Amino acid sequence: MQEADAAADAWFAFVVEARSGRARAGRLTTPHGSVETPAFMPVGTAGVVKAVTRRDLADVGAQIILANTYHLMLRPGDDLVAELGGLHGFSGWPGPFLTDSGGYQVFSLAKLRTLTEEGVGFRSHLDGTRYLLTPERSMAVQANLGADIAMAFDECPPWPAPHEAVDAATARTTRWAHRSLAAHARKDQWLFGIVQGGVHLDLRERSARELIELRFPGHGIGGLSVGEPKPDMLRVLDHLDTILPEEKPRYLMGVGTPQDLLEGVARGIDMFDCVLPTRNARNGQLFTRSGKLSIRNARYRSDPLPPDPECACFTCRTTSRAYLRHLHQSGEITAATLMTIHNLTHYLDSLRHIRETIVLGRFEEYRAAVTQRLAAEGQQP
Amino acid sequence: MQEADAAADAWFAFVVEARSGRARAGRLTTPHGSVETPAFMPVGTAGVVKAVTRRDLADVGAQIILANTYHLMLRPGDDLVAELGGLHGFSGWPGPFLTDSGGYQVFSLAKLRTLTEEGVGFRSHLDGTRYLLTPERSMAVQANLGADIAMAFDECPPWPAPHEAVDAATARTTRWAHRSLAAHARKDQWLFGIVQGGVHLDLRERSARELIELRFPGHGIGGLSVGEPKPDMLRVLDHLDTILPEEKPRYLMGVGTPQDLLEGVARGIDMFDCVLPTRNARNGQLFTRSGKLSIRNARYRSDPLPPDPECACFTCRTTSRAYLRHLHQSGEITAATLMTIHNLTHYLDSLRHIRETIVLGRFEEYRAAVTQRLAAEGQQP
Repeated sequence: MQEADAAADAWFAFVVEARSGRARAGRLTTPHGSVETPAFMPVGTAGVVKAVTRRDLADVGAQIILANTYHLMLRPGDDLVAELGGLHGFSGWPGPFLTDSGGYQVFSLAKLRTLTEEGVGFRSHLDGTRYLLTPERSMAVQANLGADIAMAFDECPPWPAPHEAVDAATARTTRWAHRSLAAHARKDQWLFGIVQGGVHLDLRERSARELIELRFPGHGIGGLSVGEPKPDMLRVLDHLDTILPEEKPRYLMGVGTPQDLLEGVARGIDMFDCVLPTRNARNGQLFTRSGKLSIRNARYRSDPLPPDPECACFTCRTTSRAYLRHLHQSGEITAATLMTIHNLTHYLDSLRHIRETIVLGRFEEYRAAVTQRLAAEGQQP
Repeated sequence: MQEADAAADAWFAFVVEARSGRARAGRLTTPHGSVETPAFMPVGTAGVVKAVTRRDLADVGAQIILANTYHLMLRPGDDLVAELGGLHGFSGWPGPFLTDSGGYQVFSLAKLRTLTEEGVGFRSHLDGTRYLLTPERSMAVQANLGADIAMAFDECPPWPAPHEAVDAATARTTRWAHRSLAAHARKDQWLFGIVQGGVHLDLRERSARELIELRFPGHGIGGLSVGEPKPDMLRVLDHLDTILPEEKPRYLMGVGTPQDLLEGVARGIDMFDCVLPTRNARNGQLFTRSGKLSIRNARYRSDPLPPDPECACFTCRTTSRAYLRHLHQSGEITAATLMTIHNLTHYLDSLRHIRETIVLGRFEEYRAAVTQRLAAEGQQP
């Protein structure tokens, strides 16, 4: 462990550069470049962010991409990805990658799961092939994928679940964190632990304290945004903010809406990922400074305005709502590309702007103004 | 007619700059920029070239885009396109556009067609709405779409068809050419006539001579590549090359493979359009200097080479066959984008290279070398 820390120190760093309230502006250094935090990671499930190219990702200002261990181990297989140079060589994305542990997808996508202390047996949702995912196997797959940041293998209980079930899953997550750490060998890859515990503050606190002892260089917060009421999520974040070490990055997994990001940052979160901007783009839902816009709506039929008149992305610079609506209604692939470019820009621009307000010490002021504006427009903050 | 010619002269020009054998290197000037010929026009059926953005089109060196009158009049409607500034304002593509007349698509896509001297009645393949497309209506729709070049409304008989049926369709095409010309009013839009006549040289010759009398500024050659044997198409092109005026552009409609383009250029053709590069891209078929490559093939599973090692397109600079295969097999939209970028580059690069050999007076040498190489690789020239 000491040795791993020393070797990783040559490659990695995380520095909090400014604070405003509990919000933090930081910088994460990885072998493939640095990431300004708070950061949003576009989701590249199968080793590609759906509907865009790496050039589009660079244009929108993405600094780190998330890829899914579960999907890639099934197709094309992590051995093949390793043979072609890991995710970087395979996909051509030159910046940092983070891979999840596969656990969450096994629980949400795979069939015929059998959960034991050893790990999770399941059948592929693609072709029914039988797999066993354990902490050791997850580390081996993530080593093959070669992301800059890997995640410990965890058990994510469903919501709602009784306290004792969440308790058991949380205890197992700690045991699996030990095994993940023992199996993790790549010195050019950081391994983050994952805090579980559902909406129960006692379990969240125990989970966090047990992981902190293991000296992970960063902490994921899992098991949120899985159906629980929003105030429950915010309560958990408030509590964890008082426990997790300030000098290490905190990653709120699978979250969320632009408002969720704002509230997460307000509670000391540094990293986020979510399929919302990319998935909604393919469904014709655009995020704008005035809230959500559904391009299918007939009111946009002849609307010459760009999706968001205040946005400077390629799509907003070149495309009217009327044209986007036509492309979407006609089932044109280009609609998905253009709307993904916009939605990712919206997320990344929001966080860039949030970071500026933190550096200027005016984050809370900004947060209040955004919350007020969205409330005035009838959108849930 | 004299007046129209004079007004159009301020906007349009076509100059043959070099010849090599019967091949011509020319330059077509339009209100939205100039086009080097021989030119390939990517097909943007619904006002967008499928799976790419206008930035991709600029990157691959596209100089003129074809859009389909039939599709756009049905959805979103040509009135809407006109309201948003015509195809240029609507799509944001700043370069020249050409629209077809709608005739070919009515015959190939629409339902319940009724063909009379007046025009073609049909039901939309989208929602069953009843339409009547006449030469006058086609001109009105194309005026709304506002392409730089419009096409006369023609009757394209199927292949095979008896001589007398093709004769009647050809005669009607001439009568419709008169009506198209009379109805065509935009001074900032060129109108090309369309030569019909199937595989019958006597009918092709009559059609061409009747159109030449009408003094169209350019000539489309329709009704080829509709199923007839390749030698029949080449015979028609050989014959028309001796009849069509040398100083006006010749456009071989809906053709074809890279080899068809080479053979067309060898017979004095200046313009081409075809869905092959874009449609095949979406199906995983790549055009390369060594012939066709099907990315689904298991042999490319771990192939680190780009689609075409001699190609300098974005896709070939950044993407392995193995990654493309993975994206295609996973149903990722990005696969279609990357392969469309490559296939369009292949077509446009081929014509750029062909143009250079014409300017250097070495076209026939080049044509012989390509034909020989493809024959050696077992591909039909």
